[in-house]
Amino acid sequence: MKIDNKFPGKDVSQDDLLNKLPLVAKKNPDHHSNFEIAGITFGGKSLPIMAGPNMIESEELIYDIANNVKKSGAHFLRGGAFKPLTFPYRSEKYTETREKGIRWMVDAAKKVGLPIITEVMEERYLPLISSAADILQIGSRNMQNYPLLTACARTGKPIMLKRHYGASLRDWLGAAEYLMVEGNNKVILCERGISTAHTHKATSRYLLDLQVVPAARELTHLPIVVDPSHATFWSAWVEPMTLAAIAAGADGVMLEVHPDPSNAAIDPLQALDYEGFMNLMLKMKKIAVAIDRDIV
Amino acid sequence: MKIDNKFPGKDVSQDDLLNKLPLVAKKNPDHHSNFEIAGITFGGKSLPIMAGPNMIESEELIYDIANNVKKSGAHFLRGGAFKPLTFPYRSEKYTETREKGIRWMVDAAKKVGLPIITEVMEERYLPLISSAADILQIGSRNMQNYPLLTACARTGKPIMLKRHYGASLRDWLGAAEYLMVEGNNKVILCERGISTAHTHKATSRYLLDLQVVPAARELTHLPIVVDPSHATFWSAWVEPMTLAAIAAGADGVMLEVHPDPSNAAIDPLQALDYEGFMNLMLKMKKIAVAIDRDIV
Amino acid sequence: MKIDNKFPGKDVSQDDLLNKLPLVAKKNPDHHSNFEIAGITFGGKSLPIMAGPNMIESEELIYDIANNVKKSGAHFLRGGAFKPLTFPYRSEKYTETREKGIRWMVDAAKKVGLPIITEVMEERYLPLISSAADILQIGSRNMQNYPLLTACARTGKPIMLKRHYGASLRDWLGAAEYLMVEGNNKVILCERGISTAHTHKATSRYLLDLQVVPAARELTHLPIVVDPSHATFWSAWVEPMTLAAIAAGADGVMLEVHPDPSNAAIDPLQALDYEGFMNLMLKMKKIAVAIDRDIV
Amino acid sequence: MKIDNKFPGKDVSQDDLLNKLPLVAKKNPDHHSNFEIAGITFGGKSLPIMAGPNMIESEELIYDIANNVKKSGAHFLRGGAFKPLTFPYRSEKYTETREKGIRWMVDAAKKVGLPIITEVMEERYLPLISSAADILQIGSRNMQNYPLLTACARTGKPIMLKRHYGASLRDWLGAAEYLMVEGNNKVILCERGISTAHTHKATSRYLLDLQVVPAARELTHLPIVVDPSHATFWSAWVEPMTLAAIAAGADGVMLEVHPDPSNAAIDPLQALDYEGFMNLMLKMKKIAVAIDRDIV
Repeated sequence: MKIDNKFPGKDVSQDDLLNKLPLVAKKNPDHHSNFEIAGITFGGKSLPIMAGPNMIESEELIYDIANNVKKSGAHFLRGGAFKPLTFPYRSEKYTETREKGIRWMVDAAKKVGLPIITEVMEERYLPLISSAADILQIGSRNMQNYPLLTACARTGKPIMLKRHYGASLRDWLGAAEYLMVEGNNKVILCERGISTAHTHKATSRYLLDLQVVPAARELTHLPIVVDPSHATFWSAWVEPMTLAAIAAGADGVMLEVHPDPSNAAIDPLQALDYEGFMNLMLKMKKIAVAIDRDIV
Repeated sequence: MKIDNKFPGKDVSQDDLLNKLPLVAKKNPDHHSNFEIAGITFGGKSLPIMAGPNMIESEELIYDIANNVKKSGAHFLRGGAFKPLTFPYRSEKYTETREKGIRWMVDAAKKVGLPIITEVMEERYLPLISSAADILQIGSRNMQNYPLLTACARTGKPIMLKRHYGASLRDWLGAAEYLMVEGNNKVILCERGISTAHTHKATSRYLLDLQVVPAARELTHLPIVVDPSHATFWSAWVEPMTLAAIAAGADGVMLEVHPDPSNAAIDPLQALDYEGFMNLMLKMKKIAVAIDRDIV
Repeated sequence: MKIDNKFPGKDVSQDDLLNKLPLVAKKNPDHHSNFEIAGITFGGKSLPIMAGPNMIESEELIYDIANNVKKSGAHFLRGGAFKPLTFPYRSEKYTETREKGIRWMVDAAKKVGLPIITEVMEERYLPLISSAADILQIGSRNMQNYPLLTACARTGKPIMLKRHYGASLRDWLGAAEYLMVEGNNKVILCERGISTAHTHKATSRYLLDLQVVPAARELTHLPIVVDPSHATFWSAWVEPMTLAAIAAGADGVMLEVHPDPSNAAIDPLQALDYEGFMNLMLKMKKIAVAIDRDIV
Repeated sequence: MKIDNKFPGKDVSQDDLLNKLPLVAKKNPDHHSNFEIAGITFGGKSLPIMAGPNMIESEELIYDIANNVKKSGAHFLRGGAFKPLTFPYRSEKYTETREKGIRWMVDAAKKVGLPIITEVMEERYLPLISSAADILQIGSRNMQNYPLLTACARTGKPIMLKRHYGASLRDWLGAAEYLMVEGNNKVILCERGISTAHTHKATSRYLLDLQVVPAARELTHLPIVVDPSHATFWSAWVEPMTLAAIAAGADGVMLEVHPDPSNAAIDPLQALDYEGFMNLMLKMKKIAVAIDRDIV
């Protein structure tokens, strides 16, 4: 494909597209990948919704959430058993549930009939996580941890690659090429907020970059999903930014849901409660239909 | 209103809201201003659409554009007769049409029945422009040109205040307070893209910040509109970002329209052509309805 | 001059240099302007130091400061009588001293034998200020207020053009070209901090950009000075960043000095006290000598 | 230590210092760590200089460079045998020399009598690299790869932790705490440029953040070094920014040196040649002396 870019230089150039991103780049303007994961299509007309808690706090909690997001129409259960935190110390509340958490999540997901997406932070847990999850999530901080990317890609499992909060589109697509070069074609890109001078609230560390949705779409055939919860870090902004993500053309959405957000083990400001998620599902469906897509 | 902000500091604090933004700040969470300009309501359920060329190039052109955007459903004719440019030299093509341009615009707008919004760059042209325009536009670069703000506010004319591409929400609301303190209540905020590390294309200088829509809404009762044309600087991204702006809750949209964008006098990469604008109007209406608003 | 830039595009291109910045651009790599203002050379081997309070609070204060910074070796008295503030309301303490302040400053400067630099915010005060000041300062927020730039340039007075905190090097040089195109060759560029994602302290709004010193030097013959006080907004960082500015090749420095910083009318966190300024002068001299320049 | 920060919130708060950074935080304002590595003190009066090529291209090249930087006064040989690149494809020229490169470097360093610093990208090479290197370097992209940090810390080897180009000071200090919590006290921080809206050249991707030197110094006792080569990506800016780094208080400098920079295997725009490095060493010494430090 010839990119229509009169001023090459920064960002993605024609040479990058042809020589450095041969697998990630579109072959022609209408080239869009779609593929099925656990019976759900990514990159098609319908938008998959991934929902769940930031952290799998307990067996009861993950089951309750799984049950609720399933009822509201989510397609994947998300949840973290391993969490990278900025500091090495954790309060009792913050304690990762690790192997146990993964097991609880698998049980809960099976009971309610949802496939699973969860993060891989270390190669040593890859056997455990790839046997449990339907999609392996690479977190923002590991976007350019190439050995981890390669190991994940080689499992053959579908992978969702979160954009680093300081990464250019070029860096992000380069990381996706690291996944595809291993023969793994089920790669999903996920925007989750970037560092900028102004984020509008002392507690918000990121700005959701929706301009990257059409920008990435112009260059790559891979599906692009958006995570407004981590980006906004503020539950009141999650609804408008989720609807905006869908209107901007996102191929799916990942959302944080917790029965009692203010008492969540981590990130208490950003999760939606059950009612908030249910209402947002209804609104997302309307927006999807308005742009000739749907959520089923 | 008590803002729900556990970590004061940067951005807008409770003290700012009470003492520095008494006119701009909401009195309560449901406080939203709406006012009529030339029979069109800003801040209500219906979204005003402002469309036209970046520069009023000729009498024929502005009439043709006015006629076309009116047919497609625009509510205001936008166009610049005075243009701030980064460098002092202008090719023949770039020459501002100034007083003449304003006159052409007034004629065209009258013929097709559209009110006018146009930019004020200098106090000396304020009598001319305030007699011609229904809304005075303060451009991004003049957001903190306080003498100009004060002079514009004192005309009593409605004012659209564009956010500077480097301005925080706090700076922007502060500039709006400068307008309101003069007794002018018809103030509209307009987001038009910010400077960030990554804009995804060598030609794009800005990133459209849609997160500022719910963030501003949380603090101020003033209507907030979005200009995706200047922000994206790339016509292919205008449609998805316009739809996203509406889904995010914007109270209106400003768009650049030109019959032959690649031959426009300035900014040839960002304008929509007539067909592009007409199609976008249809899509905007669907998105508006999906969030219980409309474009009439 | 042919710029050595293999990847044109963003920022300043060869075409910009030749056609848009003919007066600001270097004619050859060794082209450096120098000119005298009140007997002090800018752009030469010796570095002028400009010091004084952010605001001219009273007749006594400005005289006391003038006297002290003169004794420590400053070459220019800086001080603001007109201050652009983010919000329109001022406490009694914040009240601008305006015409009166300018008069006090002229008296103090004359008594101690220092020339004056002060900011012009509005064309209406230009006759007053240009009769009082030796250098007209254009503040960050007015960097692209082109009518003001043109009016200032036409006085023939030397001008110091502060970089807007959101401006690219290209925007900044373009604004300087607006000054030079009026026949005014005594133009000084001043870096004063930019908006970025990380400024290291909740109270700091800017990051001092010293990389712009060699970057601007590569393209323009104009002298480049640095204002670390406004950039860092934190007096403890002023000393190291001032020394760094000189080591990076800055042609001069502007500093805020106040006898009792924590009780200054505005910006109490950033000013140096008399002892701090005196000590810094000694250290600046050593750094200047270490790079074959001096402060005399 | 009580931090003097009236407006907690973003960045590092008092609570962070006390509870999240107990090992990294200063105990009192004069608390500065210093420790010896291969007979060279970090954090003392004298500044260690680390120099060498970006990539260890061949046995001859690394010996020639080692010999030359030693003669000019460098204290450590730097060089990469494993290189993280944005894309998975490498031209023949770009091929990593890996185990072989490490062996060449060890031989060259031994012959000329220099200790070694080199990057660890994967835990699987840690035995090899920790047996070869005197300092383990954690690269920017791995700053928050916590399993890698923990594994490196547990070797007991000194570690230089580069700041991620999108990381806040808080994130960076948090990563350092992950190292120290393993009982490793020989931790060096390294600033190497951040992503910002304006980097002044189409080829430059980062801006060297020198404000972080006093900002980090205010909070942590750990030595802070600066890498101007990667930050500026432009050899002509390396000299002024290196001198500025020392003037700002950096505890050491890392520089890229190559006999023929324009033919270097990677990053041909940023390396100094032998003469450039020798001249810069002389200038660095003068700046160091000017601030009562030295380079011996």
